[in-house]
Amino acid sequence: MAMTAIELRQRFQALRANKVFEIFVISVIIFSALVIGAKTYEIDPNILQILLFFDYAITLFFLVEIVIRMIAEPNLKAFFRKGWNLFDFIIVVVSILPVEQSEMALLGRLLRIFRVLRLVSIVPELRVLLNAFVTAIPRMGYVSLLMFIIFYIYAAVGSILFQHINPYLWGNISIALLTLFRIATFESWTEIMYETMEVYPLSWIFYISFIFVAAFVFLNMMIGIVLETLQREHEKFDREHGQGEAGEIHWMREHAEIMEQRMERMEQMLSELTTTRCKAEKNNNNR
Amino acid sequence: MAMTAIELRQRFQALRANKVFEIFVISVIIFSALVIGAKTYEIDPNILQILLFFDYAITLFFLVEIVIRMIAEPNLKAFFRKGWNLFDFIIVVVSILPVEQSEMALLGRLLRIFRVLRLVSIVPELRVLLNAFVTAIPRMGYVSLLMFIIFYIYAAVGSILFQHINPYLWGNISIALLTLFRIATFESWTEIMYETMEVYPLSWIFYISFIFVAAFVFLNMMIGIVLETLQREHEKFDREHGQGEAGEIHWMREHAEIMEQRMERMEQMLSELTTTRCKAEKNNNNR
Amino acid sequence: MAMTAIELRQRFQALRANKVFEIFVISVIIFSALVIGAKTYEIDPNILQILLFFDYAITLFFLVEIVIRMIAEPNLKAFFRKGWNLFDFIIVVVSILPVEQSEMALLGRLLRIFRVLRLVSIVPELRVLLNAFVTAIPRMGYVSLLMFIIFYIYAAVGSILFQHINPYLWGNISIALLTLFRIATFESWTEIMYETMEVYPLSWIFYISFIFVAAFVFLNMMIGIVLETLQREHEKFDREHGQGEAGEIHWMREHAEIMEQRMERMEQMLSELTTTRCKAEKNNNNR
Amino acid sequence: MAMTAIELRQRFQALRANKVFEIFVISVIIFSALVIGAKTYEIDPNILQILLFFDYAITLFFLVEIVIRMIAEPNLKAFFRKGWNLFDFIIVVVSILPVEQSEMALLGRLLRIFRVLRLVSIVPELRVLLNAFVTAIPRMGYVSLLMFIIFYIYAAVGSILFQHINPYLWGNISIALLTLFRIATFESWTEIMYETMEVYPLSWIFYISFIFVAAFVFLNMMIGIVLETLQREHEKFDREHGQGEAGEIHWMREHAEIMEQRMERMEQMLSELTTTRCKAEKNNNNR
Repeated sequence: MAMTAIELRQRFQALRANKVFEIFVISVIIFSALVIGAKTYEIDPNILQILLFFDYAITLFFLVEIVIRMIAEPNLKAFFRKGWNLFDFIIVVVSILPVEQSEMALLGRLLRIFRVLRLVSIVPELRVLLNAFVTAIPRMGYVSLLMFIIFYIYAAVGSILFQHINPYLWGNISIALLTLFRIATFESWTEIMYETMEVYPLSWIFYISFIFVAAFVFLNMMIGIVLETLQREHEKFDREHGQGEAGEIHWMREHAEIMEQRMERMEQMLSELTTTRCKAEKNNNNR
Repeated sequence: MAMTAIELRQRFQALRANKVFEIFVISVIIFSALVIGAKTYEIDPNILQILLFFDYAITLFFLVEIVIRMIAEPNLKAFFRKGWNLFDFIIVVVSILPVEQSEMALLGRLLRIFRVLRLVSIVPELRVLLNAFVTAIPRMGYVSLLMFIIFYIYAAVGSILFQHINPYLWGNISIALLTLFRIATFESWTEIMYETMEVYPLSWIFYISFIFVAAFVFLNMMIGIVLETLQREHEKFDREHGQGEAGEIHWMREHAEIMEQRMERMEQMLSELTTTRCKAEKNNNNR
Repeated sequence: MAMTAIELRQRFQALRANKVFEIFVISVIIFSALVIGAKTYEIDPNILQILLFFDYAITLFFLVEIVIRMIAEPNLKAFFRKGWNLFDFIIVVVSILPVEQSEMALLGRLLRIFRVLRLVSIVPELRVLLNAFVTAIPRMGYVSLLMFIIFYIYAAVGSILFQHINPYLWGNISIALLTLFRIATFESWTEIMYETMEVYPLSWIFYISFIFVAAFVFLNMMIGIVLETLQREHEKFDREHGQGEAGEIHWMREHAEIMEQRMERMEQMLSELTTTRCKAEKNNNNR
Repeated sequence: MAMTAIELRQRFQALRANKVFEIFVISVIIFSALVIGAKTYEIDPNILQILLFFDYAITLFFLVEIVIRMIAEPNLKAFFRKGWNLFDFIIVVVSILPVEQSEMALLGRLLRIFRVLRLVSIVPELRVLLNAFVTAIPRMGYVSLLMFIIFYIYAAVGSILFQHINPYLWGNISIALLTLFRIATFESWTEIMYETMEVYPLSWIFYISFIFVAAFVFLNMMIGIVLETLQREHEKFDREHGQGEAGEIHWMREHAEIMEQRMERMEQMLSELTTTRCKAEKNNNNR
């Protein structure tokens, strides 16, 4: 029985790896997400019927596949220990829940939204991207903390200085934080600046220094995280495959050690040879 | 006959590689594209006449050159197998089509636009850039998919929560997707936020989290693709030329293997030498 | 006594390294910063009381810890020689100053703002980020100088050409500098351009060339600084730990020298061996 | 005489390398540039007098220094062959021209603007940055050409489709090019889009595809150029100093060749040794 499950799992995996099948599933999920979500396009009811049929078929495919994967594992604990298995399981369960009743319409609509996450179940590249995103979170957290400190100090100074000019923008620190975020996105920031410059003509220093610092920290965060994530991915790939520059260097590093030991042995032998040679020479000559 | 075609092709290639000729052709194409397209500049009719003459001359040059390249190839199949040959052929054909009749004015105008693509035929660096663009498409596709999922979830949540506040912006998921794209470009996004914050004071979490996630994914996509493309180009160049850091490492990697084999042989010989030496010693001493 | 101080310091360091303690302290500092700063949230007085209690407790913890660190050092000079010690000391002193009197309310409010910097005292990653920021300042200074030159030349040309069109935007070089900064952030720059294009139809060249040059220099500055800082961090880490590609290469570089010397000695010995061998042969043969 | 000139030049170079002197000169140039340019700050006439005095003193310093550099060179041709010498010479000549007469006020004001370029004469880091900028121009040219093609095709299509909707934005290709540049900077682009979407509901495809393509090409251009320039700088530095990863690899690459040749010689000697050894053995044994 277990053998059959593993065999079936392999068949399903082969079907999934098929590019045409992948593109078909992606198209169905996207279109059904748009159609069900929007409910405004004037689509031929027959086409809509076919689309919904395919959408249910895909959910069924996922359901059957996940059941087979659960059977193929020795036990359920081992199955749920892998994060992505749990993710797939929840998505399938949410997709098959019958939530069409009117009394819980909002919940039903919210749950239906998450059906689009079936895309992550079918496209392995999206898992790689999400993994990269997840591994970047700790670093993002620390840089967000630094950004919060910078925004907070500017917001506190701004709310003290500009509160009487425009309480709608600088009324308290929370409002000032939002105003600063708006300035950081360059959204009509000159209007805000011109308003305060009428009272404090030098207040442009506040705005321009903030824009410089915020842009630097924001770019630092984004580019730093992206580059680190990319580098980590590449190093991981290179280490696993022994390919590329890093792989070649690693190969040389290991073999250099072997070569060094060999050369040490060779020098030892050579010096022994020279000594015995000399002795032999002497013996030969003495004889 | 074929020999002459190949000779002629070489002459045309030499003319093309000429920088002065290249700059002249680029100028003529750009100016005629602007003049023909705009039809509003008040240009001296004589200068316009000369410009049009040069423009036709360049198209003729391309026509003659492509015919020679076709003759120089053993057969037409081999010629059209290369993507860029097909591209050049279509551009030349489109450029010489006589589409000035009034009844198909729109088609004529659309076809004339593509004459500007003759620039790609004359500047080899543009082909390199377009190649880089084309090779980046698969990765772009997957990150676009991830972006679609993020945009879709935010659009669905936004359309459920904010539909009654402003149906013009959040009426259905399609409209909400467009609104979110607008927010991602920071286009008057604070107005949209302030409007919903009057009803839901905490809705800034929705906007700011979206801006963070969208900016991260977008920058990840762009920077990741650019860096990967650049790296691939460099690696390809280094591998072909054996130059640079990667080239030097690759050379060492290959030669390290040869050196290792040589040292193995040397150690073998040395150990044999020591053994025979000892035997000889013994023989010598025993005698 | 000093031993006990060092022991106590180690205990405090162990407590600080605790992740749960770190997250708790970060939460208390952020919430008390928002609550004290904003004074607008309608929070249950009891919760506020607890929050303030924890806030004072953290300051007390910092005070006790810094006193222990001061005692643990051989003398105060050695303590204050480290920049971060001085930073922590000032933050603690500012945090415990009793500045609630109404006559110096503004000073008190400004001082309270800086309590948020206790976050930098508790999170070592923030120190790394701030260090990176500080080391980037010299390079930032030079690129800012280049940007000033570019902005100044454009501002001067702009104020000469456009002064009579809109003195509010181009009245003198200082105002024009601010206007150009606004254009560099794309803030309603087309309005400014359309206004001057009515008088000088070719003035779009001024704006578009400025946007290109400013964007290039700004991106150059930001990306260059970020990449250099990242690279320096990585190199420092690799050099200290001997890990990664750079570490492996450095190891090989050093050992290659040792191997080369060893091979020189081996060749010497071999050539001696061959020479004496030959002599011995001759001796043997001659005998 | 020439010796004295060279000695004097060295003294001037020593003075220039002095950081305090550099910062003083930078401050004077910037403040005088702002004061002379703006002519609006209400500054104490005495301070203005001192500032102008220092400004003239710096120009005099530059004049004397450049004359000494000219004398120190064997002839004037050798002096002017270096681009930066010519640059410094023109800046000094422009700075000392007496252009205060009213009849050529505009020229005088334009010339005075360029006095700020004396900063480039005094700060060597700015020359490095400008060099990087100049070396990036060819690549920038090609990517600008690609961008022109993309903008042109979109502009032509846009002017054909949207001309009747808003001739002010899409009237002809030139105007459409400007409108597209505005869209690429996200300047009120949604207004433009909503206007055309009333007539063509699917025209959002036009705008969003354009923003994606333009952002990709623009970022590709900027990041690619910055990275390439940085890399070239680093490689140049590493090659010259033999430092860093690239330097270590280059050292190893060269020495690996020497080692390989040495090992070839050693193997030769060893194999000879073994052969003669065997012969000797035979001789010994045969005897």
